[in-house]
Amino acid sequence: MSMTPNEFKKKLRGIVPVQFCPFTKEGEVDMQGLKENTKFIVDFAKRGKDVVVLTNGSTTEFYVNSMEQQKKNIETVIDTVSGQIPVIVGVSQPAAEPTIRMAKYAEEVGADCAMVVSPFYHHASQEGMYQYYKTVAESVNIGIIVYNNIDVSGTMIPPELMARLSKIDNIVAVKDNSPIVGDYFWKSILVEPNDLVLIVGLGEVEYLGAAVYGLKYRGFVNLTGNFAPDFPYAIYEAVEAGNFNKAYEALKKELPLFRAMAKIQSRRTSISVFPEWLRAPTTFTTVGKLAMDLVGLRGGPYHQGQLPIEDLTAEEKQEVKQALKEMGVI
Amino acid sequence: MSMTPNEFKKKLRGIVPVQFCPFTKEGEVDMQGLKENTKFIVDFAKRGKDVVVLTNGSTTEFYVNSMEQQKKNIETVIDTVSGQIPVIVGVSQPAAEPTIRMAKYAEEVGADCAMVVSPFYHHASQEGMYQYYKTVAESVNIGIIVYNNIDVSGTMIPPELMARLSKIDNIVAVKDNSPIVGDYFWKSILVEPNDLVLIVGLGEVEYLGAAVYGLKYRGFVNLTGNFAPDFPYAIYEAVEAGNFNKAYEALKKELPLFRAMAKIQSRRTSISVFPEWLRAPTTFTTVGKLAMDLVGLRGGPYHQGQLPIEDLTAEEKQEVKQALKEMGVI
Amino acid sequence: MSMTPNEFKKKLRGIVPVQFCPFTKEGEVDMQGLKENTKFIVDFAKRGKDVVVLTNGSTTEFYVNSMEQQKKNIETVIDTVSGQIPVIVGVSQPAAEPTIRMAKYAEEVGADCAMVVSPFYHHASQEGMYQYYKTVAESVNIGIIVYNNIDVSGTMIPPELMARLSKIDNIVAVKDNSPIVGDYFWKSILVEPNDLVLIVGLGEVEYLGAAVYGLKYRGFVNLTGNFAPDFPYAIYEAVEAGNFNKAYEALKKELPLFRAMAKIQSRRTSISVFPEWLRAPTTFTTVGKLAMDLVGLRGGPYHQGQLPIEDLTAEEKQEVKQALKEMGVI
Amino acid sequence: MSMTPNEFKKKLRGIVPVQFCPFTKEGEVDMQGLKENTKFIVDFAKRGKDVVVLTNGSTTEFYVNSMEQQKKNIETVIDTVSGQIPVIVGVSQPAAEPTIRMAKYAEEVGADCAMVVSPFYHHASQEGMYQYYKTVAESVNIGIIVYNNIDVSGTMIPPELMARLSKIDNIVAVKDNSPIVGDYFWKSILVEPNDLVLIVGLGEVEYLGAAVYGLKYRGFVNLTGNFAPDFPYAIYEAVEAGNFNKAYEALKKELPLFRAMAKIQSRRTSISVFPEWLRAPTTFTTVGKLAMDLVGLRGGPYHQGQLPIEDLTAEEKQEVKQALKEMGVI
Repeated sequence: MSMTPNEFKKKLRGIVPVQFCPFTKEGEVDMQGLKENTKFIVDFAKRGKDVVVLTNGSTTEFYVNSMEQQKKNIETVIDTVSGQIPVIVGVSQPAAEPTIRMAKYAEEVGADCAMVVSPFYHHASQEGMYQYYKTVAESVNIGIIVYNNIDVSGTMIPPELMARLSKIDNIVAVKDNSPIVGDYFWKSILVEPNDLVLIVGLGEVEYLGAAVYGLKYRGFVNLTGNFAPDFPYAIYEAVEAGNFNKAYEALKKELPLFRAMAKIQSRRTSISVFPEWLRAPTTFTTVGKLAMDLVGLRGGPYHQGQLPIEDLTAEEKQEVKQALKEMGVI
Repeated sequence: MSMTPNEFKKKLRGIVPVQFCPFTKEGEVDMQGLKENTKFIVDFAKRGKDVVVLTNGSTTEFYVNSMEQQKKNIETVIDTVSGQIPVIVGVSQPAAEPTIRMAKYAEEVGADCAMVVSPFYHHASQEGMYQYYKTVAESVNIGIIVYNNIDVSGTMIPPELMARLSKIDNIVAVKDNSPIVGDYFWKSILVEPNDLVLIVGLGEVEYLGAAVYGLKYRGFVNLTGNFAPDFPYAIYEAVEAGNFNKAYEALKKELPLFRAMAKIQSRRTSISVFPEWLRAPTTFTTVGKLAMDLVGLRGGPYHQGQLPIEDLTAEEKQEVKQALKEMGVI
Repeated sequence: MSMTPNEFKKKLRGIVPVQFCPFTKEGEVDMQGLKENTKFIVDFAKRGKDVVVLTNGSTTEFYVNSMEQQKKNIETVIDTVSGQIPVIVGVSQPAAEPTIRMAKYAEEVGADCAMVVSPFYHHASQEGMYQYYKTVAESVNIGIIVYNNIDVSGTMIPPELMARLSKIDNIVAVKDNSPIVGDYFWKSILVEPNDLVLIVGLGEVEYLGAAVYGLKYRGFVNLTGNFAPDFPYAIYEAVEAGNFNKAYEALKKELPLFRAMAKIQSRRTSISVFPEWLRAPTTFTTVGKLAMDLVGLRGGPYHQGQLPIEDLTAEEKQEVKQALKEMGVI
Repeated sequence: MSMTPNEFKKKLRGIVPVQFCPFTKEGEVDMQGLKENTKFIVDFAKRGKDVVVLTNGSTTEFYVNSMEQQKKNIETVIDTVSGQIPVIVGVSQPAAEPTIRMAKYAEEVGADCAMVVSPFYHHASQEGMYQYYKTVAESVNIGIIVYNNIDVSGTMIPPELMARLSKIDNIVAVKDNSPIVGDYFWKSILVEPNDLVLIVGLGEVEYLGAAVYGLKYRGFVNLTGNFAPDFPYAIYEAVEAGNFNKAYEALKKELPLFRAMAKIQSRRTSISVFPEWLRAPTTFTTVGKLAMDLVGLRGGPYHQGQLPIEDLTAEEKQEVKQALKEMGVI
């Protein structure tokens, strides 16, 4: 059974690994792999850690899978977790109608919360954005997490609109991917913590920059939590203790991987409405899956159905491997 | 039975109405309405006009409907058209896997061509874009139309990449929504007409700006073709006759509607990665559907599942009505 | 003596070469060279052609020179032209105060018109833009040309604001660098030709895309007019005769140079707020100056004070030379 | 006499008020006012505080004044400071040649450092940016501060390029206006503190977000230091003590002013290449000057030569006054 929105709000803190979706060579989902990956996260949490798992998100490549497959994945993860830690289920679709269908499904199968990215086909106006989230939220009883992601949605939820959204009853949190430093300050001011839990969506680096504003940001979504959770957890613990210098030192331990990812990404160029410095990487999924395979979890091979996500070259795979060695992960 | 890619290439010219999807108040698709709307277009074509119909596109709000519903709509349109004019079927999905599934389906049910927008969740790099279209094209035998739409995809296909894509066998055309005037020149130079049919995707205004470069652009997608096809057709005929001044005069006859749409759109504001002057309107669908209703075709009522597309206010509906009266459409 | 704004309006048509500023190796302005370059343009005009010369503009690298040097250049050009053709004088500065100082100077020394780019340090709001141009215009009696250039100003003057600006008495024309095809249509509709002369600022390619809208655009600023004016003039004549196909064919004769410039520019990358497809080239000045030298006019050597404009490599110089040979210019 | 670059590097820390330029009603610079404003800052510093004064910067509206006037202002400030605190002198011009002229002048009159914004007319490529700063730096012996300001320059200096620039001998610091949170992390990693002093240019809010990365950011440029320096200084002291929570509480004390500024700015709209969320305000200068007047320093009246900077309305002036009262500043 799902938590109520209020229960969920209390439990939402810590590191939030966003899962990968392991595929077979033929492009089928490796359901056994998904289970094992999930168990790994739960096992880490059981050591007394604040962990919330996020599945069927961008990194889970939800958009590659059919609705039926997405539903199977969601059920599998919820069953595997079995109430031991909170589960956030991505139900993002490009319009209200299909998003509501998925949110209702998530509610039925016991998700504690449904995460909804801002519309990513046509772009919402500010009022359209408000109506969109309101309409979706009112269609279910579980909590809704707003996913503010300029890179996929083309639009931003500015602090004032976030404050307005926070007053909708079962909108319980935001996964915030704003790249703008000042936005994190303003949300710390304009959003009441009782209304909305603030979670950083861009990872450990941005978590520090956001958490510095009064420790209002209660956690962060990240990749490394899937295969090397001690790294991000050390950052979270240092921040929670108010020790930002320790957090910075912990953050630096992940530098080999960050550097490898930046290097790989710099080789992909696009003709985009996004300035270079605002673009999200299109290789983090393949990098992360390789890391999963290397530590003995299930990343699985690349297949062309994942396009526009591109494969790594053999050399790039070596770079990732080398980075993980430097970090002592493998 | 579908045309071969080469047959289709020969027939692709003229006005290309992109269909609306009429909903009932409850959000169901009005299948009878879709048929009637389709017949209206076919009837116009039967008067000896160059018309190609486009269904399941952005304006058809494909992203609101489930895959099953999309398939029903596609079949209905193909059956209704019954080979009398070419049919382009939108099969856009956010990754290669689901796009291929839809393209294969379109092929099965006899579509002459499948239109594929550039990836709209994660953004393709230039190489990823090429691989994406190649992978999709190779999965079917019917022609593929590239849909270059910065507004939904966040990325652009620059002229050089378009030329490269044009060399893939069954990539037969582009629906080009570039807002950049110089791009149309360069595509007229770099793309061989035998490889790729150039169609303007932004409507009649941009058609003139593109067609001036050597008459290489063979037609344009538009809204008014659904309910008042004489207007865009007059523009097409004038351009084909090389009479741009006549085309400009014909274009001006649609000004009342263009003005109403611009005015309505200016009331919606968003916080976007897109500069104001690059944003596509989010109200053209509702404006167009109202026009359909007013001329006795089937637009159907607005329902919230269409969000982020917003409804028109009562006053805005009057503005549209007034514009259509000025044009003599109603 | 200057023309009145109304006289100038009547005479503003045809090709508008924007001058280069030839430097010596030491970075001094080659005043004799500037004179000879000017004479070349005047001589072409005297063959009964519609030519207006533009000096102290972006391509003249006005921003490299001190105010005193700019003034000397302006006087030299006005003296050399000696009333034989109209002269537009760039007086762009980053705020109203220095722009007014320069505009008054231009008036004093007999310029027919002062061209003012939109503020390029801090960015104007729409109302600030209007007030800016109004304040500058009211400070002089000669005509003012609005220079709408998103690339240097970061802001655009949308068609509605252009229409509003056109009602200010001595605002007589716009040099329009909008890259957006639809904008040219809307300006053709919203601006009354008696109020404002429309000139395309981006060159011959965009001139066609703009002129197609009712032949309201009366000419275009360009580089080649400085050293090979027959090329752009053929385009202008064909357009004026309403023969767009001939204009397109004439345009294609410049392709070797356009290709060389695009190739050279593609080697420079920046981290910019501008999407790649909206960026103006930073190498056209050096390419153009090389062409000047090659035809026996005065381009002059590159010197580092011109930075951020970068020099061409030896190979790139060969590419330009080859292009000019293909065109038969040298 | 100027400090050596190395001496300056050691002293560059703390709050860096960027001065206003008080004008008379007629648009003349109020030189006596400038002196008094300067003394106020020096007096604050003499209480044992880390203060560096910045003059002839954007906020000083350098671009409104002629070169001669800029020089007078610079000399006046340097004379008034008389070596009691370090002085940074803005010498920004749109190309290398005039920037070098101004930098040499600054050196002559005893500035400790010259600050140079990235080219703001034509946009530098990455290599052009490097060459630009190198050329300027090599022309003088005093230290050069890189001013990374996307809003006026349209381009960004990414962390890798900043690291490269930091290796040029007399490039001693950066005033960093990046809005991107992750950039501050990467600069903390890639730039060696001995090479380059990192200063936040956007003010107190962004200072926290940047300083959290290992306390590498040694201070920040700000407005309030001109008239209420205790406010920003409390933030600086808390950060230096590693007490980010105290810094956040100190930051919140400035909220009334921040809110008033945001509200005022939201009333100005522009058609810009910059997404709304990346635009710098065009009203901070007038707000700041009003605050100066209200505390008994010299802000001076608004005059139209400052355009595109717009005046405040009477109601907005009340809003600012009210904010300063809430803060206890007046």
